[in-house]
Amino acid sequence: MTTTATLLLQPVDACCAPAGEDALDASQAEDVAKVFKALGDPTRVRLLSLIAASPTGEACICDLTAPVGLSQPTVSHHMKQLVDAGLATREQRGKWAYYRADFAALTASSRALNPA
Amino acid sequence: MTTTATLLLQPVDACCAPAGEDALDASQAEDVAKVFKALGDPTRVRLLSLIAASPTGEACICDLTAPVGLSQPTVSHHMKQLVDAGLATREQRGKWAYYRADFAALTASSRALNPA
Repeated sequence: MTTTATLLLQPVDACCAPAGEDALDASQAEDVAKVFKALGDPTRVRLLSLIAASPTGEACICDLTAPVGLSQPTVSHHMKQLVDAGLATREQRGKWAYYRADFAALTASSRALNPA
Repeated sequence: MTTTATLLLQPVDACCAPAGEDALDASQAEDVAKVFKALGDPTRVRLLSLIAASPTGEACICDLTAPVGLSQPTVSHHMKQLVDAGLATREQRGKWAYYRADFAALTASSRALNPA
């Protein structure tokens, strides 16, 4: 069937535009929700905020435990979720892991949800 | 103590800037995480995307159930979470509830996390 024929077969007397033509499909929504889910926890929000607010743009895990009052393994676990969601990058230097915030995934997810 | 005296008492030989001076505090992080948590679910992402993509900028709950393949009570429950997080507004018209997306809370939360 040609494109023209397909278009002509659309119901021209429908009362409304078809819902959701430009909306995210299920797979896209999964990707977007994954990013937001990683930020749906106050501790992870604080950790990312602490890293982003650091004068050097990065933070050693050794400096992240005290502000949130949690053990290093717990902070590591939260940071892994942020890294997995693409919201932070991790670099091992000797004994310590250093993190940088990466807001590209958040910007992309927000734009996908609200392209306007 | 005067502001000047307070400033003079800061350790001037500290190796680094104090971590997290501009970072979100625990209460602010709670507010921000609440918004992101509401979007940390693929169904809610699709619902908000469907509403935002609607030509009229709003959607009747009666038009939201089919695209996500869920019952009306389930969709209502998801929509309540979006409304509670400030991401959508709800208006009852006769039998049906109509929703509009409101991205101000998402924008504010993203900016709070990344003021740069």
